[in-house]
Amino acid sequence: MQALILTIGDEILLGQTIDTNSAWIGQQLNAIGIQVTRRITVGDTLESISSSLQEGWSSYDLVIMTGGLGPTKDDITKTAIASFFQVEMVFSEDTYARILRIFDRLGRPATEAHRAQCFMPANAQLLPNSMGTAPGMWIKQDHKILISLPGVPYEMKSIMTEAALPRLRQQPGLIPIFHHTLLTAGLGESEIASRLSNIEENLPDHLKLAYLPALGQVRLRLSAYGGDARVREAEMETIADQIRGSLGQAIYAEGDTSLEACLGELLLVRGLTLATAESCTGGAIAQAITSVAGASRYYLGTMVAYHNELKTKHLGVPPEILASEGAVSRPVVEQMVRGILSTYQADVAISASGVAGPGGGTPDKPVGMIWIAVGNQQDIRTRQLKLGKNRSTNIEATAILAMNELRLWLLDHPELTGSGMPF
Amino acid sequence: MQALILTIGDEILLGQTIDTNSAWIGQQLNAIGIQVTRRITVGDTLESISSSLQEGWSSYDLVIMTGGLGPTKDDITKTAIASFFQVEMVFSEDTYARILRIFDRLGRPATEAHRAQCFMPANAQLLPNSMGTAPGMWIKQDHKILISLPGVPYEMKSIMTEAALPRLRQQPGLIPIFHHTLLTAGLGESEIASRLSNIEENLPDHLKLAYLPALGQVRLRLSAYGGDARVREAEMETIADQIRGSLGQAIYAEGDTSLEACLGELLLVRGLTLATAESCTGGAIAQAITSVAGASRYYLGTMVAYHNELKTKHLGVPPEILASEGAVSRPVVEQMVRGILSTYQADVAISASGVAGPGGGTPDKPVGMIWIAVGNQQDIRTRQLKLGKNRSTNIEATAILAMNELRLWLLDHPELTGSGMPF
Repeated sequence: MQALILTIGDEILLGQTIDTNSAWIGQQLNAIGIQVTRRITVGDTLESISSSLQEGWSSYDLVIMTGGLGPTKDDITKTAIASFFQVEMVFSEDTYARILRIFDRLGRPATEAHRAQCFMPANAQLLPNSMGTAPGMWIKQDHKILISLPGVPYEMKSIMTEAALPRLRQQPGLIPIFHHTLLTAGLGESEIASRLSNIEENLPDHLKLAYLPALGQVRLRLSAYGGDARVREAEMETIADQIRGSLGQAIYAEGDTSLEACLGELLLVRGLTLATAESCTGGAIAQAITSVAGASRYYLGTMVAYHNELKTKHLGVPPEILASEGAVSRPVVEQMVRGILSTYQADVAISASGVAGPGGGTPDKPVGMIWIAVGNQQDIRTRQLKLGKNRSTNIEATAILAMNELRLWLLDHPELTGSGMPF
Repeated sequence: MQALILTIGDEILLGQTIDTNSAWIGQQLNAIGIQVTRRITVGDTLESISSSLQEGWSSYDLVIMTGGLGPTKDDITKTAIASFFQVEMVFSEDTYARILRIFDRLGRPATEAHRAQCFMPANAQLLPNSMGTAPGMWIKQDHKILISLPGVPYEMKSIMTEAALPRLRQQPGLIPIFHHTLLTAGLGESEIASRLSNIEENLPDHLKLAYLPALGQVRLRLSAYGGDARVREAEMETIADQIRGSLGQAIYAEGDTSLEACLGELLLVRGLTLATAESCTGGAIAQAITSVAGASRYYLGTMVAYHNELKTKHLGVPPEILASEGAVSRPVVEQMVRGILSTYQADVAISASGVAGPGGGTPDKPVGMIWIAVGNQQDIRTRQLKLGKNRSTNIEATAILAMNELRLWLLDHPELTGSGMPF
């Protein structure tokens, strides 16, 4: 099954918006055995949408359109679809009722634009949108499928996950695809490649190993196309076991989870509570930890002491140390851990202080030099990171590497347990 | 002059890499009056590259290819180009000499792959690459232009900036393009559309108004194609002025900036300092504020009191109020503002407490109900948000709306100034 992703939006052609939807859709389709062989982006004009739709429908089994749906630019995409399939536009009472309910809850009136949004090509089955007003559309005809989705990423993802992907999985003729994913943190792609070179050389032809790098992390995805599920899974388990042998604790989990969820789980089962003290990361570590639902069962909070005076006042960092060593130093992050442990009465803590950039670097402490510390009152582990020049990637990478450092520290203190929330 | 951007790479189709190159190229071309009307992404196969090149060359004045150049996957793109133009591949002594110099400097030998990389289609003029080994290519024929660039973003950008864009600017027949962008926060897309309906109806044909929505924000972009710069800019200024009249303070800035930068600027020029106290946002407000380089000139820090006990201990929220009203309530966010103002000695503060979801909702306080407060000791403004069910969008939207609320509060207190950092 070959797919085309058709993205609609002048703002994408103009480069004002980066198209992240297509990458996400590509990953999802690939995971269920559908190959994206082309992506096209066109502007918000009837002619360009129609001609791309024509081209896509004639050459692909599946066309996924994103963008061009919503209260203000609804019309063109739906008009293009209706005219391509030569069907009428019909009013969807269900959609209108849903929109009215949403606005009723918000205590605001729906506008005429919202009513107009409820006209749909007659041959479309509507895919419910739990995150917004414009539903997705599913059209199946001549053994081909067209899916049209709004361009707002969280709406698109919600419709894909809840409605489109489950339907796609049931289509006949999909060659089953099996995945086994190992999640690593703290090792670079080339370091992993060199440790796994033997395993990769001996990989059978029907198994593939892909490296999916992100900041501070690499996901390793084993895939098998076709064949018997039980046989393939057993084969992949054998390879996974070899990979575990080569990468050890760098693997933090397997399957579909995140480092922050995994760290949370580790804390929760041991009854340990966590607090953080941040400087250059400006809340990014807290933000990552609290992105996990239920983090309140083990996470107490953070203090972002962006200013040195607050590091002294609230975290007990001695002004002499700040003066002699500077805020970006081992003793400062150590004391930040001690300080937040006692202020927030936590069992373990993470701290970070560094030069996120782009300004503020010195020859001694260039942009990208960041100290992190993890541990408890008895044992604090520190590490100096040497990152790049980009502020946002420095902040994000620090959050990942600091959480990973605490995870490794916890693995080295297997006996440590706590009694949960102190209050 | 109409352009096609052709991106080559399996990793992009698979969604392992997000294509940021095309957005950047789109912005650059648009700024010099070249309109990108289509983008295509294909995989690393000779057939797909050749057929897209064929299609692009027949329909566009300019085709820019990125990816598919470099020591490991060099061959296919150049073979496709040479075969399309029916020219030989010739060895570039200059390129080889440059590569040898680079490796000499690195103290490593160049590989055979690097020598192979020096064969180029005979009709290509080479565009020097100061950041890597693979030069770009420029082919002009039949009044059309093909530019081929490596896919590594900083190499692509360097060749574009230093060699390709200067040449493109000199091409005859470029129609200038003008933009005027207004940035709004706090109003929905449909609310804006209804307020601007009169203006939109009377928009002259050569002007376009685009809505670019994001969480809690909508960018409004006026564009004019062709004509005299001064005339077009005056026309757009007239429309912009009508939009200002309809949207008022919802417009936080015009041009290329962000809400967090704009809020920071407002604080900085008034000498005011900011602190935040967060609960459900878990550091997201701090994270947004500190994403702006130089935030340390006005931002003191945040306390994320994820746990109620910490709200009492460090922010002075009375336990009775937590017991009677719950943590998600007006008096609690008000006291969080008061508490952080005094703890961090800030001039103004933002606080937020709510049910981010997906769990934790009750009939009284459903998922998505979030209280925010902004202000100083004399005047605190609170607002209840009713957001959706998605944890991460609830957190992100709260951060945007809370920053916007403080911006509006500051506009309503024009006389308020401070004396900068308290330490």
